[in-house]
Amino acid sequence: MEEIKIQRAAKLKEKPDPKTLGFGKIFSDHMFLLDYHAGQGWHDPRIVPYGPFMLDPSAMVFHYAQEVFEGLKAYRAPDGSVQLFRPADNARRMADSCDRLCIPPVPEELFVEAVKALVKVDADWVPNEPGTSLYIRPFVIATDASLGVHASHSYLFCIITGPVGAYYAEGINPVKIYVENDDVRAVKGGTGYTKCGGNYAASIRAGERAEEQGYAQVLWLDGVHRKYIEEVGSMNVMFKVDGKIITPALTGSVLPGITRRSCLELLRDWGYAVEERLITAEELFDAAESGKLEEAWGTGTAAVISPIGEMGWKDKHVVVNGGEIGSLTQKLYDTLTGIQWGVEPDPYGWTVKL
Amino acid sequence: MEEIKIQRAAKLKEKPDPKTLGFGKIFSDHMFLLDYHAGQGWHDPRIVPYGPFMLDPSAMVFHYAQEVFEGLKAYRAPDGSVQLFRPADNARRMADSCDRLCIPPVPEELFVEAVKALVKVDADWVPNEPGTSLYIRPFVIATDASLGVHASHSYLFCIITGPVGAYYAEGINPVKIYVENDDVRAVKGGTGYTKCGGNYAASIRAGERAEEQGYAQVLWLDGVHRKYIEEVGSMNVMFKVDGKIITPALTGSVLPGITRRSCLELLRDWGYAVEERLITAEELFDAAESGKLEEAWGTGTAAVISPIGEMGWKDKHVVVNGGEIGSLTQKLYDTLTGIQWGVEPDPYGWTVKL
Ligand SMILES: Cc1ncc(COP(=O)(O)O)c(C=O)c1O
Ligand SMILES: Cc1ncc(COP(=O)(O)O)c(C=O)c1O
Repeated sequence: MEEIKIQRAAKLKEKPDPKTLGFGKIFSDHMFLLDYHAGQGWHDPRIVPYGPFMLDPSAMVFHYAQEVFEGLKAYRAPDGSVQLFRPADNARRMADSCDRLCIPPVPEELFVEAVKALVKVDADWVPNEPGTSLYIRPFVIATDASLGVHASHSYLFCIITGPVGAYYAEGINPVKIYVENDDVRAVKGGTGYTKCGGNYAASIRAGERAEEQGYAQVLWLDGVHRKYIEEVGSMNVMFKVDGKIITPALTGSVLPGITRRSCLELLRDWGYAVEERLITAEELFDAAESGKLEEAWGTGTAAVISPIGEMGWKDKHVVVNGGEIGSLTQKLYDTLTGIQWGVEPDPYGWTVKL
Repeated sequence: MEEIKIQRAAKLKEKPDPKTLGFGKIFSDHMFLLDYHAGQGWHDPRIVPYGPFMLDPSAMVFHYAQEVFEGLKAYRAPDGSVQLFRPADNARRMADSCDRLCIPPVPEELFVEAVKALVKVDADWVPNEPGTSLYIRPFVIATDASLGVHASHSYLFCIITGPVGAYYAEGINPVKIYVENDDVRAVKGGTGYTKCGGNYAASIRAGERAEEQGYAQVLWLDGVHRKYIEEVGSMNVMFKVDGKIITPALTGSVLPGITRRSCLELLRDWGYAVEERLITAEELFDAAESGKLEEAWGTGTAAVISPIGEMGWKDKHVVVNGGEIGSLTQKLYDTLTGIQWGVEPDPYGWTVKL
């Protein structure tokens, strides 16, 4: 593996107040870069001062969205040390995304080393207020200066980071989600299981419509039958129905969330019956109306564990657990964040110290 | 409408040999830019020397592919004048794409004026060899320096141009296309009817697989039933079966091509029965095997009219019209290119002189 060169910023930025952090607007002092050119492979890993890209207007990423990204976090433990959560899983998933998008995969080991090296350089940016963390955004863009639809021959892999607070304005308070009936985010055979830009571009309109109606996010249905529940904008979803846990199966149009995977491992360890299967919106709303839906929550790196308090679908509207966070949701939140922030032991070996 | 400011390049580039033009690798001396900021709307239209963009690494276009584009051409007429083909239709379609992607639409009149002004400034770049033209690529990208999935508050509209020859290496010679059975490009409820980057990113892998098998492009099936023919990579498709013309209906996952629309107008005027409807791959291959498929061709700005000589689907392989361009395909090509290059009269008012 090529050595990562480090060029430090001459002047460091002022850090924001860790008590009022939002999401995704503030970036740390440095970024990681890695180039790809056909014939040469991925090369020249380097950490440089955070700054703009210079790209030709014909760069493929602007026209054909050949781009993928990842999202993970660095957490400040009580002893002041910094740790990552399952970074190798993000490396793996980005390789899968690359494969679908015909982007040469970034070597997984290099991905993890790059994240570590960058967070080390900007370790002062990892905040230590409760609930805060350093959000890490690795991404790849196609840079060929050429029109015509085909895979690019050159790419840029970049990692940027920034301190973040809660993803939703609601914090850990329950969110309202709306089942989208018209727009489709992803379909089997498409790119739904990847983190490619196009999935998110397709989702913006429904998100705006949901917001107009007072909902925080969209609950997507599958693109073929338009009846199976898939996931929320940036979270996977889980439901506690009659004591059992059900969550949509990974059918190809759902993102295989790392928080999802972690929750399923915890839940199984706790002795819950967990079903990964197809779930219709009808089944879900029937369960809610008959009182069998005990809890509902979303899982995701940005949103962590997010209780779902209300759900709308066409003219139906149901309240889950009286609009309060349920005890299992709370236990998942406490356990997962306990491990992530190094407050509880990590029997699973999920965390990676810097 | 704000006046378009013009800043000319100090040094002009050398023009390429018009006899060996490819597609999309050479760009003219200038580009058009227009900014959008929430509260301010689209503003500051200007023509400046062609050059790179400076964009923050967190710019939304790199992460969530909030981007749309168009494609049209300027043609050199025998009298030396330059004309555009239905530019208002591109302006309209880009507004539709913007709408789906939650991008504030570029005013259609300004779109057309901008194209005209830019082509005027770079008029020397419009080549005059047979079959050559100036390809025009308008596009919009989301520029907010912010992570978190929602519509951007700032955008850049840009137009770049470049002289082009034939899109396919085959030129007007028949191309081979392959019906894709696994990957899906677009689905009803998604973004298939728009020219957004995500559609093309999703299509690259199948395109590569088709190429590996010796085919020039992919023939897409619908994402729901996986049996109805939709379109080719960058062309709509038409078939002459038993004297009638059939072409896939615009069901929401097919791009409403301007060349398609123009061909349908010509064909109806010529007295052909034209059916826009659902067509299964099975119907198509049955027609081919029973000898009823007389001609097949693709339509698109880049590819103009492109005869389809062979088609593969699973283990089937059919040759259309002996692998030769058919007489109706040739007539469409001659008529359309005649109008576009100003060699024939334009009774439809499709062309717009600069
Ligand atoms: C569409 C989508 N689903 C689910 C998730 C959750 O995945 P993870 O738990 O790996 O963050 C995310 C966010 O990362 C996402 O963007
Ligand atoms: C997916 C797709 N279909 C069809 C077309 C043809 O459309 P038009 O005739 O407007 O160029 C294009 C190219 O522009 C395209 O990208």
